[in-house]
Amino acid sequence: MLMPQDLIVKSLGACEHISPLKLESASHHQASYFAEDSQRIRLDVKLRPESDPEAQLSLEVAGPRQRIYFRPAHTTAAIVTCGGLSPGLNNVIRSVFYELFENYGVPRVLGIKNGYLGLTSNSGLEPILLTKEFVEPIDKLGGTVLGSSRGAQPAEAMVDFLQARGIDILFCVGGDGTQRGAHALSQESQRRGANIAIVGIPKTIDNDIAFVRLAFGYATALEKAAEVIQAAHVEARGAINGIGLVKLMGRHAGFIAAGASVVSQEVDFTLVPEVPFPLDGAEGLLAALERRLQSAGHAVIVVAEGAGQFLFEGTNQLRDASGNLLHQDIGAFLRDKITEYFKQRDFPVALKYLDPSYFIRSVPANVFDRIQCDQMARSAVHAAMAGKTGVMIGSASDHFVHVPIPAVVTQSKVMEVSSDLWRAVLQSNGQPRW
Amino acid sequence: MLMPQDLIVKSLGACEHISPLKLESASHHQASYFAEDSQRIRLDVKLRPESDPEAQLSLEVAGPRQRIYFRPAHTTAAIVTCGGLSPGLNNVIRSVFYELFENYGVPRVLGIKNGYLGLTSNSGLEPILLTKEFVEPIDKLGGTVLGSSRGAQPAEAMVDFLQARGIDILFCVGGDGTQRGAHALSQESQRRGANIAIVGIPKTIDNDIAFVRLAFGYATALEKAAEVIQAAHVEARGAINGIGLVKLMGRHAGFIAAGASVVSQEVDFTLVPEVPFPLDGAEGLLAALERRLQSAGHAVIVVAEGAGQFLFEGTNQLRDASGNLLHQDIGAFLRDKITEYFKQRDFPVALKYLDPSYFIRSVPANVFDRIQCDQMARSAVHAAMAGKTGVMIGSASDHFVHVPIPAVVTQSKVMEVSSDLWRAVLQSNGQPRW
Amino acid sequence: MLMPQDLIVKSLGACEHISPLKLESASHHQASYFAEDSQRIRLDVKLRPESDPEAQLSLEVAGPRQRIYFRPAHTTAAIVTCGGLSPGLNNVIRSVFYELFENYGVPRVLGIKNGYLGLTSNSGLEPILLTKEFVEPIDKLGGTVLGSSRGAQPAEAMVDFLQARGIDILFCVGGDGTQRGAHALSQESQRRGANIAIVGIPKTIDNDIAFVRLAFGYATALEKAAEVIQAAHVEARGAINGIGLVKLMGRHAGFIAAGASVVSQEVDFTLVPEVPFPLDGAEGLLAALERRLQSAGHAVIVVAEGAGQFLFEGTNQLRDASGNLLHQDIGAFLRDKITEYFKQRDFPVALKYLDPSYFIRSVPANVFDRIQCDQMARSAVHAAMAGKTGVMIGSASDHFVHVPIPAVVTQSKVMEVSSDLWRAVLQSNGQPRW
Amino acid sequence: MLMPQDLIVKSLGACEHISPLKLESASHHQASYFAEDSQRIRLDVKLRPESDPEAQLSLEVAGPRQRIYFRPAHTTAAIVTCGGLSPGLNNVIRSVFYELFENYGVPRVLGIKNGYLGLTSNSGLEPILLTKEFVEPIDKLGGTVLGSSRGAQPAEAMVDFLQARGIDILFCVGGDGTQRGAHALSQESQRRGANIAIVGIPKTIDNDIAFVRLAFGYATALEKAAEVIQAAHVEARGAINGIGLVKLMGRHAGFIAAGASVVSQEVDFTLVPEVPFPLDGAEGLLAALERRLQSAGHAVIVVAEGAGQFLFEGTNQLRDASGNLLHQDIGAFLRDKITEYFKQRDFPVALKYLDPSYFIRSVPANVFDRIQCDQMARSAVHAAMAGKTGVMIGSASDHFVHVPIPAVVTQSKVMEVSSDLWRAVLQSNGQPRW
Repeated sequence: MLMPQDLIVKSLGACEHISPLKLESASHHQASYFAEDSQRIRLDVKLRPESDPEAQLSLEVAGPRQRIYFRPAHTTAAIVTCGGLSPGLNNVIRSVFYELFENYGVPRVLGIKNGYLGLTSNSGLEPILLTKEFVEPIDKLGGTVLGSSRGAQPAEAMVDFLQARGIDILFCVGGDGTQRGAHALSQESQRRGANIAIVGIPKTIDNDIAFVRLAFGYATALEKAAEVIQAAHVEARGAINGIGLVKLMGRHAGFIAAGASVVSQEVDFTLVPEVPFPLDGAEGLLAALERRLQSAGHAVIVVAEGAGQFLFEGTNQLRDASGNLLHQDIGAFLRDKITEYFKQRDFPVALKYLDPSYFIRSVPANVFDRIQCDQMARSAVHAAMAGKTGVMIGSASDHFVHVPIPAVVTQSKVMEVSSDLWRAVLQSNGQPRW
Repeated sequence: MLMPQDLIVKSLGACEHISPLKLESASHHQASYFAEDSQRIRLDVKLRPESDPEAQLSLEVAGPRQRIYFRPAHTTAAIVTCGGLSPGLNNVIRSVFYELFENYGVPRVLGIKNGYLGLTSNSGLEPILLTKEFVEPIDKLGGTVLGSSRGAQPAEAMVDFLQARGIDILFCVGGDGTQRGAHALSQESQRRGANIAIVGIPKTIDNDIAFVRLAFGYATALEKAAEVIQAAHVEARGAINGIGLVKLMGRHAGFIAAGASVVSQEVDFTLVPEVPFPLDGAEGLLAALERRLQSAGHAVIVVAEGAGQFLFEGTNQLRDASGNLLHQDIGAFLRDKITEYFKQRDFPVALKYLDPSYFIRSVPANVFDRIQCDQMARSAVHAAMAGKTGVMIGSASDHFVHVPIPAVVTQSKVMEVSSDLWRAVLQSNGQPRW
Repeated sequence: MLMPQDLIVKSLGACEHISPLKLESASHHQASYFAEDSQRIRLDVKLRPESDPEAQLSLEVAGPRQRIYFRPAHTTAAIVTCGGLSPGLNNVIRSVFYELFENYGVPRVLGIKNGYLGLTSNSGLEPILLTKEFVEPIDKLGGTVLGSSRGAQPAEAMVDFLQARGIDILFCVGGDGTQRGAHALSQESQRRGANIAIVGIPKTIDNDIAFVRLAFGYATALEKAAEVIQAAHVEARGAINGIGLVKLMGRHAGFIAAGASVVSQEVDFTLVPEVPFPLDGAEGLLAALERRLQSAGHAVIVVAEGAGQFLFEGTNQLRDASGNLLHQDIGAFLRDKITEYFKQRDFPVALKYLDPSYFIRSVPANVFDRIQCDQMARSAVHAAMAGKTGVMIGSASDHFVHVPIPAVVTQSKVMEVSSDLWRAVLQSNGQPRW
Repeated sequence: MLMPQDLIVKSLGACEHISPLKLESASHHQASYFAEDSQRIRLDVKLRPESDPEAQLSLEVAGPRQRIYFRPAHTTAAIVTCGGLSPGLNNVIRSVFYELFENYGVPRVLGIKNGYLGLTSNSGLEPILLTKEFVEPIDKLGGTVLGSSRGAQPAEAMVDFLQARGIDILFCVGGDGTQRGAHALSQESQRRGANIAIVGIPKTIDNDIAFVRLAFGYATALEKAAEVIQAAHVEARGAINGIGLVKLMGRHAGFIAAGASVVSQEVDFTLVPEVPFPLDGAEGLLAALERRLQSAGHAVIVVAEGAGQFLFEGTNQLRDASGNLLHQDIGAFLRDKITEYFKQRDFPVALKYLDPSYFIRSVPANVFDRIQCDQMARSAVHAAMAGKTGVMIGSASDHFVHVPIPAVVTQSKVMEVSSDLWRAVLQSNGQPRW
């Protein structure tokens, strides 16, 4: 169980320098725009008796500090993007650069190539020096201009690399595995007494990182997923007994499948990892689908890639280079099962299977994610300049916060079945209460 | 000052009926999806000593109740949309209808024509009976299929109208003025002992209603506003000493101007009602603009319609049919002042003025707003079916909540200058700290 | 070889009625807006000696006739949409309806359900009576509100159906197979002496119907295909030796693959049915791809579904319900071949395969296609009202024209390798001259 | 009247060099992709007797020549963008650069800053050397990365500038005035015996340049204009007797207003320069608008900026820096007249006026325009490399062609009232035949 002391952030040392940010208001009646370590945000917003320990759990608020640890003019920072693509990576790179270079006056900001691989000297990959010309147009582009790669690298080799290049601050943009790597970097760095601030920025298109309410990329994913669902709906309605089957991302958490279903309002069955569903029997998916076709003449099914994995139990399990369990393909599995089911019943259906995957994650960030990216990136810069380390930027109750990385990587975040989101799914489609 | 008792919601009476919603999970280990009146959400999420009275302010959570006040099969509901357009109105209408008709089984849902005017019998406007065929495609359309109008109508006449047609529930979608009208309706109805539930759904593209964190329509407005700012930026850069001047909505609050500036990352000056700015003098806007042109060759200015109204002091003040103060046109004013300033200095500039107004508010809702609309609408239905009245749906700390309307209409919401949003503006543009 | 007499259009009889269209200008100096049968459009616009027979080939211009065959108030028309979806079907339905109902005053316009199947009485499918309320919003929707189906039906059964319901005019929207069906309908109808006008409207997202320069749906397909190519490019650049492989539509003709490559300017290899390519050897695709990766670090390949079918020679060949040859999956084939090739060379690559298919064809029509649809649909109405039959609307040299259906179905249209389009592909990518 | 000799293109001299373009097919059975001067495209595609002189008018086909005038390795080229913005300018710049640099091997391509002003030495503006890094991402951006300016500059000063920098080829992207400037440059250059190829690329968002069927930018303008019309329609329908009035571009020609009306299918009155309309009287616009409101309750009016100028006769007439006549503001004029008319009749209306202007012209090019830009740009490069001068790229009957600039600037192109486009407008709205 999470304890208050698990939520205390580490610092490299005392903040002896005055922030160069011009955040004091000229007019005396306005509050300062600086934030303070002592201000903490509750994790639980439900009114509870104070004796309830959960009522006291809180996280340090993010934001610029009036006193900082690093002297900007003598600081070198670097940023690395790891793992699969998510809309907004370039926006994060751009805002990290602008905040450091323009606002703090940090003269040297490096872009590490191709993820953690680019932090090892034997990869042969050289960091690039970021400039205003280079980063200015990138916020309109999908992907990451730095490239990415999957998989861990030895912390020793990476700290060697950082020290050899005099890097004082490293921003690690990535998912669970990346944050674990950031934690290892922070520990190895501290072990050597190297005053390097390691600050994580969470990247999870699935929205499944703890202490992050809406990860950047997620809203864009919903937008694109809803477009694909609309196509599936159009296809389903265009045929006699048409079935549109859409596979969406979501290894452990069904946020994309659920959110896109609510956005589109055209989905009849939403299958997510958090809610097991029977395939066969009167209460199963196949029979429910048959009933839907009989009454409405068409149906749309959305399935998260991590849903229904129990159906594959006993089969071999593979992992990708980042160590993520490779799921069995539930989309193709359902496509085949449904086809077979209706064939056996001599019930002609027209099934269209859509698997948009890369298309969804490689597009530029939408308006909501652009704000998220900018604020996460600048919050990360403030944390780093104040000497915080081993910390990831999170969000809770409409505030950006500092989360100690160990607390992040020991948690996992899934969609609660009692949440507003899942209830919204159930209210908009008519699927059985499995 | 707000007191806890101001935040207690009124009810028409005891909830004697069982909800027809199938929200109990089949599997015993899962929580029920029903919400309870006793669950309340804190308004202030900062960790404070319990003795601090603000720490105790809270609102009743929204959501479906297990026991309800109205018998669905004998209930007639109606919905009315008032005031200026905002993206998402049709989505609200559609989700209110579907939740009532499909989920609760309410057989008769009426759409009131053209705002409160359509609730008066001498308007000659007849409500339309909403059907699945009618509402099914409307979530892809901007505007409101019911039409709208501005201005108040006598509560007596409207309650006469509701009683004459046997309407048990009325949903009032609109801004401050509309909610004031809803409150009057609720009072007049109670005075007569008419058991009519009046539930407000806040509509404010400016995002300036209290107890609503992100009003529907606002995110879509940012998206469209950012497109226009991008055009202004392109125009400014395409000319020698090009100036792009964009006027955006925001009578009392600068949320749209600020948010769109953060989204676009291309704005040099963001002028909002909350932050007065000097026009003349070395610290004034005009001199700062001149410095910007000298160093960068182009500039983009975004001004909220309510900004700089102090510059018009002493002039006549007009009001629209809803009683809103009609602002002087700050956009045209700045356009003329800037042109004059540089003409006097013999400094050739190419100023392009963009005033997108209607274009921004009449588009279909984007993905984020579609979720907001769906959840607000269904929350409103749950509140009404449970017999709540004189209540508006709000949002606080990531939860939808019930807000007594009197608490709403006595508050006003503006952008705090110490907020993350305004700080994000200042961090992304280089404007002076006025 | 095509002869001038092959291009003469058939008529049901003399045009004895005056058109109700108000197309005479009030001012005497303006030309009438009516078109005449005697006006013909050249098929070949190159300046040639008149003795060259191709110089004389021409088609009757489309457009409203001043004298018409049917009496509008006594006419019943119907429209049927067949085969796979293409953006713009609903726009065609809508404009056909409006032109008939609003402009000509035809009181009864029927929508046939689910393609030619809906023209057989034993399908049990009933036509729907189109109304303004029904068609008004459909131009913003993808797909077809009438539904579709694949495959031919007996002409006798369909003419029985038309006669039983008193249908005077039938619009057949579909591809090659559909036009063949329209021709059969026209012949059977004439055989019986039934004065039914059968008018075809070409639908081919692949743009491969003869005598149609830009079929509706094609421009929209390019737009969506280019979005997917952009995602593939982003993926390819985001990885070390990233390869983005995109399969696009195009059974017999590479117009979509070629056009989308020119739009995106990010494609390195464009593979189309018209240009065979070697897979192996120094001049083959695989070696060229390896050279590209070595020099640039990433590559994007676009392959039309009908490309490289010679690679499957000798394997079994299947057909769909419309009789179209089912192609072997060249996309999956290339994905596997490329993976294998680089594995054998111990050259690590990151291949991302995108197969957007349904997503591209199910979206609403874009601006260009909306104009095409409107003009094609209204041209078809004019042709039908003037008693033309066995005719399809085509386009040549910027004019809409009447094409006798037999001339259409005996031709096939592919992309010429000496065309501007294919040259544009070769100029924008660096692929070998296979 | 146009004579065949007016359509002969000038050349700098004999083409003594072999083209480096690899456009011969490897396989012997395929045609070469090179074009030849002797191939000419008919201007008139209607079948006419050969004795008709119009039947013989033709233009030289554009495209790469097998023999060229300039030696690529010793050639310096430059490109200049003039006048108001139009979507696609950056696409043109990019494709001109890539064709020259990548395909022909021209090592030095300069970008002239801010239009013709940047071709005068006393402007102080220096050309920039274009590189792959610089132009690679610009096709996704609106505007022109080179900047623009209005107005003519002395041909002598500009040829001095070209000679001083050793520029052999100049591409002039702009409208009528720009092409007149290009002609002057070509004449001055020939007078001096300076072998400089001057090639024009037509830019006209209004689509009003002769010998250019669909100018780049026009299709994008339709797309954005249709979005604004949709907003106007939504506003009009949202109010009681709502009127949406939209002013669009179109000084001399109504192509944008007409095309956008056909796209949107929601316009009731389309007012263009080519068709005068009475304001008052039973047949006038105001009375027709009143009838429309009485029958339908709302109306949408689209007015081209050059429409109804006869209403201002006798007032002062101003010109902009490019010498274009500044029109009186017909949009504001109609807004006031309509308001006054209904006020006098005590007929309450809600008029919403939308003037999107800059927003429409500053966006990135859409898919159709991207193809146009690419092909126009590369055609211009081929013409220039072959030593053509005083020539503009045009399009006729689906082919790109070479047009002698004097033939362009003495013609003017307006929308013919008997065209398919205007007929489509009249068929989709119900406006009187003025």
